[in-house]
Amino acid sequence: MENFKLLENNLLNFLDSYLKSSGAKGFVLGLSGGLDSAVVATLCTKVAPTKALIMPTSSSNKANLNDALELSSKLNLDYQIIDISDILASFLPFSNTNDKLRVGNIAARIRMILLYDHSSLLNALVAGTTNKSEKMLGYGTIYGDMACALNPLANIYKSDLFEFASYLGVNHKIIAKAPSADLWQNQSDENDIGYSYKEIDKLLKAIENGEDLSKFDSDFKNKITARITKNSFKQKLPATPNI
Amino acid sequence: MENFKLLENNLLNFLDSYLKSSGAKGFVLGLSGGLDSAVVATLCTKVAPTKALIMPTSSSNKANLNDALELSSKLNLDYQIIDISDILASFLPFSNTNDKLRVGNIAARIRMILLYDHSSLLNALVAGTTNKSEKMLGYGTIYGDMACALNPLANIYKSDLFEFASYLGVNHKIIAKAPSADLWQNQSDENDIGYSYKEIDKLLKAIENGEDLSKFDSDFKNKITARITKNSFKQKLPATPNI
Repeated sequence: MENFKLLENNLLNFLDSYLKSSGAKGFVLGLSGGLDSAVVATLCTKVAPTKALIMPTSSSNKANLNDALELSSKLNLDYQIIDISDILASFLPFSNTNDKLRVGNIAARIRMILLYDHSSLLNALVAGTTNKSEKMLGYGTIYGDMACALNPLANIYKSDLFEFASYLGVNHKIIAKAPSADLWQNQSDENDIGYSYKEIDKLLKAIENGEDLSKFDSDFKNKITARITKNSFKQKLPATPNI
Repeated sequence: MENFKLLENNLLNFLDSYLKSSGAKGFVLGLSGGLDSAVVATLCTKVAPTKALIMPTSSSNKANLNDALELSSKLNLDYQIIDISDILASFLPFSNTNDKLRVGNIAARIRMILLYDHSSLLNALVAGTTNKSEKMLGYGTIYGDMACALNPLANIYKSDLFEFASYLGVNHKIIAKAPSADLWQNQSDENDIGYSYKEIDKLLKAIENGEDLSKFDSDFKNKITARITKNSFKQKLPATPNI
């Protein structure tokens, strides 16, 4: 508990000092009904006025919408529901509706557009919700859900977020549900990646700490490190020539 | 001419080596009919298969569309016209149609979505078209036209691009037109910023070289440096806490 208090203070200070240095008036974030955005919303509301956009598509899990609404009510959060189905449909003549990954990426980027438009309207900073596991794995959409002004969870592994969320008083329904980007029906992070966050984070922490990796199963290790390498571009600015 | 040949080789090597290291098969870029994207398209086609998306709205300047088509034909470029008016209209119920800057930013981000969707479809890298003057000034849309995998013009000032474009054989109509993001009717970069690129770049070069700035008019200097400071976030990754 001691550590969680310290972590919370650290994150609140980060949000507060960055906000002040930016001159913005508050935060805006996308609320999915999942764990990560619940934690970020809880933290942001303790620092400054926070607007939440809840942006389902017609295929989004209705339970997530309800969880997002319950959380908004509990945090007394200023929220707006924007069903992005019509916007998404307007892109589909130019894309491939059978490729769920491409459609999911478009949905994630539509949400970014709406968040940044509200950022401009409200003079509010877009608070990101990408945790450290997602960031290292590159499990997210570049210029979509990974786009933000500041990212309070960037250094917290997903498997460490459950207890922290509980400490912050996030509803146990939100904590207990299977992690999902909810970009298509029944999507599950752990099915997409092939391993549980508990397993993955053990390896990610070992990589971060420069530990000997020989104790990990080689197929598992190869798959995860290949994913890290393949997606590392998502954590970088565009490449530029030296001239 | 010697220098332009060197510059061209340098940029072609950059495009080629980055493409090879990425494993992608070619490039995709937005072709506006303006100078910057004409230069990037000319360079990309010399390196690998390149797809151009021409993405006007109903308010876009028709002359730009014609110039983009002429260039595509001259470069034998695989192009596709996507009128983004309907997509843009699908966002407007959730935005403010009277604020041309917000609508312009949405249009720039819609183009990013379409470019990245084609990047995925074609296994092609999104080539950016932001020049050094725009980059330093932050004159562009973050996660919109500034979003790309690699940016060949990132180190070339706008005022130096005119001659380089001429060396590369870009049509003089494209070189002679007033620089414009064409996000709304009769938009002009130099009107938006308040000074010509020739004036601005003198100051930007002096700043880059650490020169004494006392020779510059103080109102001009203050406006430009304020813009640089205000927009510097556009060149940075999201802020993250130290924990």
